[in-house]
Amino acid sequence: MIYLDNAATTKPDSECVKAAEKYILSEFYNPSALYAEGYNLQLELKESRRKILSLIADENNFSLTFTSSGTEADNHAIFCGGKRGNVVTTLGEHSAIYSAVTELKQRGTEVRFAELNSDGSVNIESLLSLIDEKTSIVSIIHVNNETGAVNDIAAISAAVKAKNKNALFHSDGVQAFGKIAFKLSKDIDLYSISAHKIGGIKGCGALIKRKSLALKPFIYGGGQEQGLRSGTENVFGIKCFEFAAIKRYSVLNECLEKVKKLNKDMRSRLDKSLFSFISVENASPYILSVAANGVRGETILHEADDAGLIIGTGSACSSNKKNRYSRIILSCGIDENTADGVLRISFSPENTLSEIEKATEILNRIVKNKKDIMA
Amino acid sequence: MIYLDNAATTKPDSECVKAAEKYILSEFYNPSALYAEGYNLQLELKESRRKILSLIADENNFSLTFTSSGTEADNHAIFCGGKRGNVVTTLGEHSAIYSAVTELKQRGTEVRFAELNSDGSVNIESLLSLIDEKTSIVSIIHVNNETGAVNDIAAISAAVKAKNKNALFHSDGVQAFGKIAFKLSKDIDLYSISAHKIGGIKGCGALIKRKSLALKPFIYGGGQEQGLRSGTENVFGIKCFEFAAIKRYSVLNECLEKVKKLNKDMRSRLDKSLFSFISVENASPYILSVAANGVRGETILHEADDAGLIIGTGSACSSNKKNRYSRIILSCGIDENTADGVLRISFSPENTLSEIEKATEILNRIVKNKKDIMA
Repeated sequence: MIYLDNAATTKPDSECVKAAEKYILSEFYNPSALYAEGYNLQLELKESRRKILSLIADENNFSLTFTSSGTEADNHAIFCGGKRGNVVTTLGEHSAIYSAVTELKQRGTEVRFAELNSDGSVNIESLLSLIDEKTSIVSIIHVNNETGAVNDIAAISAAVKAKNKNALFHSDGVQAFGKIAFKLSKDIDLYSISAHKIGGIKGCGALIKRKSLALKPFIYGGGQEQGLRSGTENVFGIKCFEFAAIKRYSVLNECLEKVKKLNKDMRSRLDKSLFSFISVENASPYILSVAANGVRGETILHEADDAGLIIGTGSACSSNKKNRYSRIILSCGIDENTADGVLRISFSPENTLSEIEKATEILNRIVKNKKDIMA
Repeated sequence: MIYLDNAATTKPDSECVKAAEKYILSEFYNPSALYAEGYNLQLELKESRRKILSLIADENNFSLTFTSSGTEADNHAIFCGGKRGNVVTTLGEHSAIYSAVTELKQRGTEVRFAELNSDGSVNIESLLSLIDEKTSIVSIIHVNNETGAVNDIAAISAAVKAKNKNALFHSDGVQAFGKIAFKLSKDIDLYSISAHKIGGIKGCGALIKRKSLALKPFIYGGGQEQGLRSGTENVFGIKCFEFAAIKRYSVLNECLEKVKKLNKDMRSRLDKSLFSFISVENASPYILSVAANGVRGETILHEADDAGLIIGTGSACSSNKKNRYSRIILSCGIDENTADGVLRISFSPENTLSEIEKATEILNRIVKNKKDIMA
């Protein structure tokens, strides 16, 4: 199988899994226990937090809390940061933010959605027009999970703070962490990341927080994660996350260059009479969103699967929804007919040019056959 | 090392871990994905839910939602079930409930705490006196995590419903599931369980819910777990949970008999001039709480650790707290001097009588030496 749905989840890095294995059966203790075996794990987790954090942030100004997923981190930011006044976000957020703010709205908080540009990035003029003195939190996805559009969150957060210095700025960085180079800038207060998008395993994420920010816990209990997130720590998941993140960042630019090549090759090989590109050239190369005009994406997905190629249509997290068309794609101003044929192809540095060649052959053939039959 | 802190966490069952291993590197797909490889995992998770549920409940009347921990399941029950009127619980709850209701109180909900009997079970008269027509949820721990006292939640929930049929009844079953025999009775609405207390791995739990009960989600997003708990599913953790639960229940009574023997042997071997028992004879045999009068529990714990024996003092989840004395132990009416010397010894069916013999030798020796020095 050729796997090109890496934005949904990556195949865990076997080297990292192997290195973390001892935390299942050997170092199995409860990190909250007082005896040395438990306490040593507590110290190891502290190091894991520090090491992951140091990859993208200044440890003096930020801290990291492990969560069970990027979704939980997003929920923590929204529900604990967005309680007063109004909440400003975009129409291009992952469902973890979109559903959370929809719930906030149900609870009586005003939610304002900034419009998207055609590539899926936030329209900054629209965004800034929504922010006022009552805005409690602004949440902007870093890399759009369907189009790969990169929001310049350093510039955006600075502009947000210029309008309201008390508004918190959160970004969902799940599709950015371990993929594109950046450091958290001074105007970013909260940042969500996930392990299983970069070679870690499912069930582990983290919320990064500016140290000076007093945030309430989202899950209450034994006071783990410095009181911010209770529940016995998922030590194996956390260690896999640590190892995968460190490995990815040690070769971040090489991976980026490799994925750029894969993306460019895919773009050049896809038949332009059959496919149009949703993702723009300066989007994250890890995600390539294309539309097969007139052929339903889901149909192509299933035929490709039968032919040995795994791709996505939109966010895997949206597939539970009843909506036929992607909210994000429609918000880019794309018509329903085109939206119906959208495919999300997402790369990993493990993919090869030979896989891309075969994948494009499969996609070109499937769509051409469908069109020939319909003609 | 002799490991007798199984109530804090168990060593995962290596056979179950091995059986679940393929869900890390081989079956690594996102269960929300539309292609066969993802969808098949979705079907497998459905089966995992059904299989775990069927061990303790009628599948026609209950459903199961995977969470990241017992703590998250408890928080889901309390925060989504206890929003109106008053919330009734006990002074003997795990910190996952205690901290959650304390937060509810901060948010303006009235919280009422039922008193404990001297063994740590809830005083039913006290409990029922607190329930009125405004009670929205009642939460009673099934097996007390510090004393092992078993609350008869079938009888208690029936008595609660007789006073207010609209009050929800929740029980934290983390120390009961996979250990003592029971089935969820008709008056129980919500029940929390955890994987890592019965041979699964950390980072996985579940909330069982009466099907007819409409509960709001606690984590919002992609709509996983039938919309009740979003976030990409921790497939490996869930499969370990499934395999461990099925294995435990296939030998539940044998395990119980074995642990009873271990417990009885420990009781008979501990020097009665040095130790008094907090746990009563009809408590869950998996937990034996004892007090070394006049010697601090934490001191014994560290010396035992050095001598090759791992035991706990109270709940591992309470060790993050600043309080010297256990809230639960004091609520049993035990004086501070005794509470200071409390040790929690907790068994697994994997422990042996020879380990118990060595463990008691170590404990008797440590406490005798301390007392001799102090004398």
